[in-house]
Amino acid sequence: MRATLIYGAGDVRVEEVPDPTVREPTDAVVRVLRACVCGSDLWPYGSMAAQGHGDRIGHEFLGVVEDTGPRVNGLKRGDVVVAPFVWADNTCDFCREGLHTSCRHGGFWGADGVDGGQGEAVRVPQAEGTLVRLPVGEDSELLPSLLTLSDVFPTGHHCAVTAGVDARTTVTVIGDGAVGLCAVLAAARLGAERIILMGRHRDRTDLGRDFGATDVVPERGAEGVERVRELTGGDGTHTVLECVGLEPAIDTAFGVVRSGGTVSRVGAPQYPTVRMDFSLFFRNITLTGGVAPARAYIEELLPDILEGRVRPGRVFDRAVGLDGVPAGYRAMADREALKVMIDPSR
Amino acid sequence: MRATLIYGAGDVRVEEVPDPTVREPTDAVVRVLRACVCGSDLWPYGSMAAQGHGDRIGHEFLGVVEDTGPRVNGLKRGDVVVAPFVWADNTCDFCREGLHTSCRHGGFWGADGVDGGQGEAVRVPQAEGTLVRLPVGEDSELLPSLLTLSDVFPTGHHCAVTAGVDARTTVTVIGDGAVGLCAVLAAARLGAERIILMGRHRDRTDLGRDFGATDVVPERGAEGVERVRELTGGDGTHTVLECVGLEPAIDTAFGVVRSGGTVSRVGAPQYPTVRMDFSLFFRNITLTGGVAPARAYIEELLPDILEGRVRPGRVFDRAVGLDGVPAGYRAMADREALKVMIDPSR
Repeated sequence: MRATLIYGAGDVRVEEVPDPTVREPTDAVVRVLRACVCGSDLWPYGSMAAQGHGDRIGHEFLGVVEDTGPRVNGLKRGDVVVAPFVWADNTCDFCREGLHTSCRHGGFWGADGVDGGQGEAVRVPQAEGTLVRLPVGEDSELLPSLLTLSDVFPTGHHCAVTAGVDARTTVTVIGDGAVGLCAVLAAARLGAERIILMGRHRDRTDLGRDFGATDVVPERGAEGVERVRELTGGDGTHTVLECVGLEPAIDTAFGVVRSGGTVSRVGAPQYPTVRMDFSLFFRNITLTGGVAPARAYIEELLPDILEGRVRPGRVFDRAVGLDGVPAGYRAMADREALKVMIDPSR
Repeated sequence: MRATLIYGAGDVRVEEVPDPTVREPTDAVVRVLRACVCGSDLWPYGSMAAQGHGDRIGHEFLGVVEDTGPRVNGLKRGDVVVAPFVWADNTCDFCREGLHTSCRHGGFWGADGVDGGQGEAVRVPQAEGTLVRLPVGEDSELLPSLLTLSDVFPTGHHCAVTAGVDARTTVTVIGDGAVGLCAVLAAARLGAERIILMGRHRDRTDLGRDFGATDVVPERGAEGVERVRELTGGDGTHTVLECVGLEPAIDTAFGVVRSGGTVSRVGAPQYPTVRMDFSLFFRNITLTGGVAPARAYIEELLPDILEGRVRPGRVFDRAVGLDGVPAGYRAMADREALKVMIDPSR
């Protein structure tokens, strides 16, 4: 079969790889219907040292169960399933607490001999715990939105949940990438009535308004902070959803958070330290968030997609076949595409 | 009257100052029955640049109402009252949310023309909002424990509350100072069954055991982290109460917190930045806490003191009159005394 491999910065290739098979009794094999490229894939795409071999890549996919090991219950050949971006047993103490990203028997796609998601098929470890069955057919129009359950929608939701967003909280979302837009959608879904989106790409912030943003602030840095403060009577917002991962974004977050408020970060941090000085201590600012345990949220978010109340799949503004994956990476890196969906059958 | 003034590092003096009077209609004048020296007073005592004049100091006291302005309701001459370590109107939006330290009309003792607490009497701004009446006499044996309602007990409580301590959480408390010991007491009061106290002063950690610590770890740094991990099956504790404020303490906190867990800090941070790198992001670690809105907690903590269920006043291991204040500062700075109580009538 064919799958995507990364050889170094700017060097993503689609090549023949061995067909996946059930190796462990807890494995399943899933034929991929849709996969996509994540903003976090762009970090290695931007900076990875060149190497002589390719590593499998991709951690967001949904597909059809082709085969299951003898210890996989509740799933059968032909089921349409979605995989969260970290695989997990869904039974250990961390999973029971909803922190599947710290599962005692889980791990990453594309690492330690596990397939990446950007290919024709994937061997899924801990399949019973990892996969969630979707009550749709292979040709459902909902596939794009259902695909976001792998990562980007639960990541935005995790950001909003850990920040404590509810009907009483004002919200600032920093970043108009796919995660930021899903954070807007998640905050609106949780009842927030005032959602300020900081972003400067008009087409993206327009989608953010559709998702529930009430205000858009294109300014950045001190000017952006000033603007959010003006919009909030000088106070800032109760919650700030930091969906970028760069130091200026986290600095902006601390600048726009109201005293007693919470900054939640879901952008993979490209910084080792953050300012948490006396001023933030005195203002009782909380810093929370982290990598989203997507698996914990899928059942909760699924009905709103099935019943059409939310359409997070709108973040996909380009679809490619496997041949188009290298160009898809380039388009996302160059900000020409917001988020690229992959249909291996094309 | 006489009051304590600080002239610079190591230079605390007790001198004659003007008697306080009601200046604003919202003021009261309180004769101090008991005051004390705070660990945070030791920061200026350790490092303040020498100056030609003294600044009033002290922010923990309880006393007797002597006079009230015309707009002070609910308090009358003779009432025994306790003051939280930040004065506040108790009516603004921040106060209603329980964040009295960010009160829109509040401020600090010993600043901007407001008296410090380590003297014979204090003019109390926003007296109706600031002071809490205590149903005891001037000679109550409970005064030491009631005095801790000013700061150190609510500060430990704030640390435990913001960390999310309850019966299901394991707890590490870092620091065996008065705040750390009160954090132990608060965690036990909130139902925590496993409380690991990190501290190396045997007399203090013994009191910590009385307050509810189930384990004591005297080791520091990497060795201390290793020890806590050993005690918790390698995982660390769900919550970590950081009651020191120095960088090694916050580093230790991140070392002993369980994935998905929370570090709460109430030690005034003597560092500008904290490590919040990818590892902590991946582990979904939250950093919370801050200066404690003591006023928000007094009514909740008071009954347990009145009914003898907790005795936080045991943190006072030395009592002095005003003449003894300079020696009291020295004793705390030299770690000869845990916390010094001041009785201006002595």
